[in-house]
Amino acid sequence: MEEEKLLARAKEPERLAMRYHPFYRGKLATSLKAPIRTYEDLSIWYTPGVAGPCKAICKDEGKVFEYTNKGNFVAIVSDGSRVLGLGDIGPEAALPVMEGKAMIFKYLGGVDAFPICLDTKDPDEIITAVRWLAPTFGGINLEDIAKPKCFYILERLREELDIPVWHDDQQGTALVTLSALISALKVVGKRLEDVEIALIGAGAANISIARYIMLAGANPDSIVMVDRGGILHEGRMDLKDKEPVKWEMCRRTNKKGKRGGIREALKGADVCIALSRSGPGVIKKEWVSDMAEEAIVFACANPVPEIWPWEAKEAGARIVATGRSDFPNQVNNSLGFPAVFRGALDVGARKITDEMCIAASYAISEYTEEKGLSEEYIIPNMGEAEMYIREAVAVGMKAIQQGVARMRKSPQELRESASSMIKNAHKVLKLHMEEGIISPLPGL
Amino acid sequence: MEEEKLLARAKEPERLAMRYHPFYRGKLATSLKAPIRTYEDLSIWYTPGVAGPCKAICKDEGKVFEYTNKGNFVAIVSDGSRVLGLGDIGPEAALPVMEGKAMIFKYLGGVDAFPICLDTKDPDEIITAVRWLAPTFGGINLEDIAKPKCFYILERLREELDIPVWHDDQQGTALVTLSALISALKVVGKRLEDVEIALIGAGAANISIARYIMLAGANPDSIVMVDRGGILHEGRMDLKDKEPVKWEMCRRTNKKGKRGGIREALKGADVCIALSRSGPGVIKKEWVSDMAEEAIVFACANPVPEIWPWEAKEAGARIVATGRSDFPNQVNNSLGFPAVFRGALDVGARKITDEMCIAASYAISEYTEEKGLSEEYIIPNMGEAEMYIREAVAVGMKAIQQGVARMRKSPQELRESASSMIKNAHKVLKLHMEEGIISPLPGL
Repeated sequence: MEEEKLLARAKEPERLAMRYHPFYRGKLATSLKAPIRTYEDLSIWYTPGVAGPCKAICKDEGKVFEYTNKGNFVAIVSDGSRVLGLGDIGPEAALPVMEGKAMIFKYLGGVDAFPICLDTKDPDEIITAVRWLAPTFGGINLEDIAKPKCFYILERLREELDIPVWHDDQQGTALVTLSALISALKVVGKRLEDVEIALIGAGAANISIARYIMLAGANPDSIVMVDRGGILHEGRMDLKDKEPVKWEMCRRTNKKGKRGGIREALKGADVCIALSRSGPGVIKKEWVSDMAEEAIVFACANPVPEIWPWEAKEAGARIVATGRSDFPNQVNNSLGFPAVFRGALDVGARKITDEMCIAASYAISEYTEEKGLSEEYIIPNMGEAEMYIREAVAVGMKAIQQGVARMRKSPQELRESASSMIKNAHKVLKLHMEEGIISPLPGL
Repeated sequence: MEEEKLLARAKEPERLAMRYHPFYRGKLATSLKAPIRTYEDLSIWYTPGVAGPCKAICKDEGKVFEYTNKGNFVAIVSDGSRVLGLGDIGPEAALPVMEGKAMIFKYLGGVDAFPICLDTKDPDEIITAVRWLAPTFGGINLEDIAKPKCFYILERLREELDIPVWHDDQQGTALVTLSALISALKVVGKRLEDVEIALIGAGAANISIARYIMLAGANPDSIVMVDRGGILHEGRMDLKDKEPVKWEMCRRTNKKGKRGGIREALKGADVCIALSRSGPGVIKKEWVSDMAEEAIVFACANPVPEIWPWEAKEAGARIVATGRSDFPNQVNNSLGFPAVFRGALDVGARKITDEMCIAASYAISEYTEEKGLSEEYIIPNMGEAEMYIREAVAVGMKAIQQGVARMRKSPQELRESASSMIKNAHKVLKLHMEEGIISPLPGL
């Protein structure tokens, strides 16, 4: 009954989305940052006055960050080849997601992100397109691009461009998951270096999670990853030449030589991180019972977790996290990218390094600890503006420390800029709702 | 004295621009169109709810106009190869202009335009880039792209894409100039079919003006165009194989076989339309004296007209127009593109035809006549919202009539949509200035 209600509830957002999207006809608009008192002011912002800033940038390209909004523009780039759980639906059908992402960028991070849905699926053409677009933008967010081309595109663009390039399905998910894991381990009193970790699913997200938890100190020998063909190990000849990224995992992880499927991977594991396919029933109760004491289970498939949280608890898990907002401990990308970009943009970062992401993970975790860690609070929810500010400062400071920042700022200056950008975004939305510029939802 | 003051005044906008641009750090931002009451609403606008609209668009691509803001997004595309009078300054240095253009699109037309400054100057690559970008946008505004590639790019993209593609330096300037000419001829009581017209300058703008005035009824035999090499005629072998667009003008116009330069072109002409180079002194007083009675002189070079208006008047011109806002009769592109796109987008037009542009010219002219034509009022100024609404309706109705509109609407419906979009943009800016979301100009 509970279960039926939850399955039904999983469909509710889609029902509302179908009703509300045509009412608003889109979710993103443009807005002016500078005043027009009379039409005469346009001679300052446009021709003939604008020639001044143009000439100044032509002489010294770095001035573009001073005279334009480039430093706060982010392109959300997708070819629509792997959108949510829907697969390759194409660039037009991907646009509602990218507009939604742009909303979140603005509302949670004060970032002016703009959807760019590309009419090509060729990886080299996507790279070329982004290179051509780069002059306008201070950062690039790759989104919903199929594996394995997403790895190649990210790597190439990170090398070629001198603005941050980010694939949210890789770094974003990984940094938020890492943060939740750090906090969960604190609650159960285990150390990242010591635990056995089973990763269920070997998509772009879980591959990146594996990389990040290793970078943060987890022992590769004690990590086991499972894909559709079972546990990854050095005997998986089906992956050897065809899937270089997975093959690297075969070689680096699972030094105990586990064989089998999800069941065997979970046996004795301290941590399960599942990002596989919508459940329930993908992970069985009895498999969780076979995990170590004080087990940590992240069942993050959408819309329904691989195992219902109460089942995992009944089977002995101490901490359970999901991707859903109607259970405690929602592991949610939106806790990551808005603040990471805020911090990176505020120092004019040339890239977002893995270390900047891991600094963000620790910043979230420290904030959570201060608020009071518990089994049901290993990760904050989206309503906590202070967390985003702290995270942005950590990212910006790490960028300065690593020498990838164009500007040097103090933590206090970074705090002020992040805080004012984020609070301003909240203020504008509130005002637009109060003044009827954004209509109330229909029928409410 | 007067002249010195005016030359000094021509520099003032640039001085202010250099002061104000770094203060605001850009002129364009993004903004939310839909409400977020609590963070739970993000499950409607983003994952998991957004899957509904994605699936619907995947099934029926036309729904993208209903579920997203595509239908109001316009890309302002430039390679920075011919920016204002500055030449090839590159994509970064072009960004202040494109942001300014986006401001005007929003403020005067309620259009969500976004700058796209491309890091390639190759015409075929620009075409490819725009084709890849098209899924996000309801229209494309090409801007400040050098001649002759701008003709080729516009032509190819108009053929290939099923959204409007527009080059403001061609159609935009042409439609506003045509409108001013229609009104000026009414004031002096001459007919377009009968007058002799001298076009000074043979850039993209004047070439398009020539085409439009011919489409509107001017007699090609009585049109004379002048470039740096003098009057265009069938003997201009320097243009024959190198400049196909100008060569076409050599063949179509000047059937009286005029030879010489600006002076000879103006002799006996009823109308002078100059878009050449910054003056004064490009056109001499005595040359204007040689024009026909009741002469009309458009001296539109920026920042200083080819001849000062009072000189033209002293030399006998009855009506003078310029590109400057500090003289009467400013021929200003901003009277065109915001409303043309408003009208085209509101009917989901697949293209902007020349006939739609000419309908806009007549709509502006009719509005001007109703307000009361005079020597000093042949074209409205930017402050007249009603003009934009009328123009948008004329453009939308012409699109429906020509069968290039996705949606059918009545003139009344079009009037309401254009009016609400434009008035909403004014309301938002006012609110943001009042509430301090946009700070007042520094030092004021």
